[in-house]
Amino acid sequence: MTESVTMNPGEIEALAVEILEAAGARTESARPLARAIAAAEREGIASHGLMYLPIYAEHLRCGKVDGQAVPKVTSPRQGTVLVDAGTGFAHAAIDAGFAELIPRARELGVAALAIRNSYNCGVLGYHMERLAAEGLVGLGFTNAPASIAPVGGSHPVIGTNPFSLAVPDGGGGAAILIDQSASVVARSEVMKHAREGRPIPEGWALDPDGQSTRDPDLAIRGSMAPSGGYKGVGIGLLTEVMAAALTGAYLGIDAAPFSGTKGGPPRTGQFFLAIDPAASAGDVFAERIAALAGAITEQPGARLPGQGRRAARKRHDRDGIQVSTALLDKIRSD
Amino acid sequence: MTESVTMNPGEIEALAVEILEAAGARTESARPLARAIAAAEREGIASHGLMYLPIYAEHLRCGKVDGQAVPKVTSPRQGTVLVDAGTGFAHAAIDAGFAELIPRARELGVAALAIRNSYNCGVLGYHMERLAAEGLVGLGFTNAPASIAPVGGSHPVIGTNPFSLAVPDGGGGAAILIDQSASVVARSEVMKHAREGRPIPEGWALDPDGQSTRDPDLAIRGSMAPSGGYKGVGIGLLTEVMAAALTGAYLGIDAAPFSGTKGGPPRTGQFFLAIDPAASAGDVFAERIAALAGAITEQPGARLPGQGRRAARKRHDRDGIQVSTALLDKIRSD
Repeated sequence: MTESVTMNPGEIEALAVEILEAAGARTESARPLARAIAAAEREGIASHGLMYLPIYAEHLRCGKVDGQAVPKVTSPRQGTVLVDAGTGFAHAAIDAGFAELIPRARELGVAALAIRNSYNCGVLGYHMERLAAEGLVGLGFTNAPASIAPVGGSHPVIGTNPFSLAVPDGGGGAAILIDQSASVVARSEVMKHAREGRPIPEGWALDPDGQSTRDPDLAIRGSMAPSGGYKGVGIGLLTEVMAAALTGAYLGIDAAPFSGTKGGPPRTGQFFLAIDPAASAGDVFAERIAALAGAITEQPGARLPGQGRRAARKRHDRDGIQVSTALLDKIRSD
Repeated sequence: MTESVTMNPGEIEALAVEILEAAGARTESARPLARAIAAAEREGIASHGLMYLPIYAEHLRCGKVDGQAVPKVTSPRQGTVLVDAGTGFAHAAIDAGFAELIPRARELGVAALAIRNSYNCGVLGYHMERLAAEGLVGLGFTNAPASIAPVGGSHPVIGTNPFSLAVPDGGGGAAILIDQSASVVARSEVMKHAREGRPIPEGWALDPDGQSTRDPDLAIRGSMAPSGGYKGVGIGLLTEVMAAALTGAYLGIDAAPFSGTKGGPPRTGQFFLAIDPAASAGDVFAERIAALAGAITEQPGARLPGQGRRAARKRHDRDGIQVSTALLDKIRSD
């Protein structure tokens, strides 16, 4: 049995701000990231919660991320917002960009936010759900260092490259929240198996020659298997085009790793589209979403994307969030 | 050996216009579809070439599509173009919408086109490549009658719902052209096996109870397997939200079939985003796309999406397009 303490999101956020500031982040940079860490814990996404905090702190100290960076916001066209994150945290850049993106999307019907010289943005769906909370459909892309090879090749060209869609529920949340990567599983799953010396299941990854492997060490030197074969590569390419090429960020093939302390800032990017459903569909939008979601939830055992996060949030708001004392000790000792 | 005649795209287009007009389409409606049919033949996509012409003609005659419909274009917001296809062909509605979409995307950086009361739009990538030819990134979605069940369920909720991305090459074409559906294979492949009385490969489809099946007849009454499991469902949902909910078109669960003569107009929809890469990335965009495409094409055996279509086009422009006399007889006899 693991010893743990019960915390609420506000306490987790405050702890994260304190640790990030101690590692060199200015408050304006630490706060948006700390909020996202608390939200990840609340939604049961432990991998991007407090568990990641020591890594963020380490990356501030080694210069993989600049805690003093001030996001630079420009608007090259009326519907386009561009943010240079200046190798700071993505979260502060996203906050700065959203302040411009949201009113423009409402005015024009659609607007785009391009972020370059950025860092990994944590849970992509978290950011998209914020657009849904504003009554907008959010479609977001974020790229990552290359780990997936094209079909027929063996050298990684694209990252696990998640995309996310958040659909407003009209009540300040998301009726549907999709947040999925281009690979069969996250690369961190393979690394976990390698640390534990366990073989990985068939179909997760390929060795450096492009052959299927169950050896996690060969997989790390090889590539991640794309979900659905060439169709997963297609999703990864879509995301790379949006998050890197359209933003002027670094491609996955040129980006320094997100993990470890080597290589300097990854300078990857994010691209977000905000669409006002009232512009093209009016009230029919909510009717269609209700009918679509209902057709899924009425089937016993079928799952609507985003349901799990909502359930975890409800549970944690009622019972509090359990955080292991070992993790808290690790966070405090760094 | 099949007897065939050699045709060029202009001849195929002229033939298609003639047949569509004879079936009741006005010229303004027949011409854009005929151009797409010729392009499909040129790109080696026979399923959406002349082979489909008798079905289009049949659908004009039975009222599944209204050949006299005039697309109604409005612009509810500066960045949003809305077209009511009036149960006419999607192609005429897309042409009418593109005339508004393209200048708005250039001016604002991004613009959206929503089409409702539409019909299947043939090869989705064909339309997106037209945006790429204008120097814009095109991201498009089109929905279809439901044929894929959510993970854990057994009743179809979404269609095979393709999405397409076209990336401009700066020379009037697409450097990358992605055009893929949410299912493992197209439903027409299962129907072909059913007609031929052959079992389908494992993993293509599910029976009406949601169990994997190799029986094509059970598969037709059941559902198509999503590519990559729940991630394929995610892509299908993304497309359904964009192409149906955001446009006010019919959801896949409510749409009449695309095949056969029953049920009246499908009233499905299309949603297109046009993004000007010059707005957010300037000249860096072309550099990134060249590096990304190069990282794929330099790997022997690796495939860049869209390569196949380009190669077919080149071959057909050199050698002409072989059309079987049996098909021509069928087209003429209807």
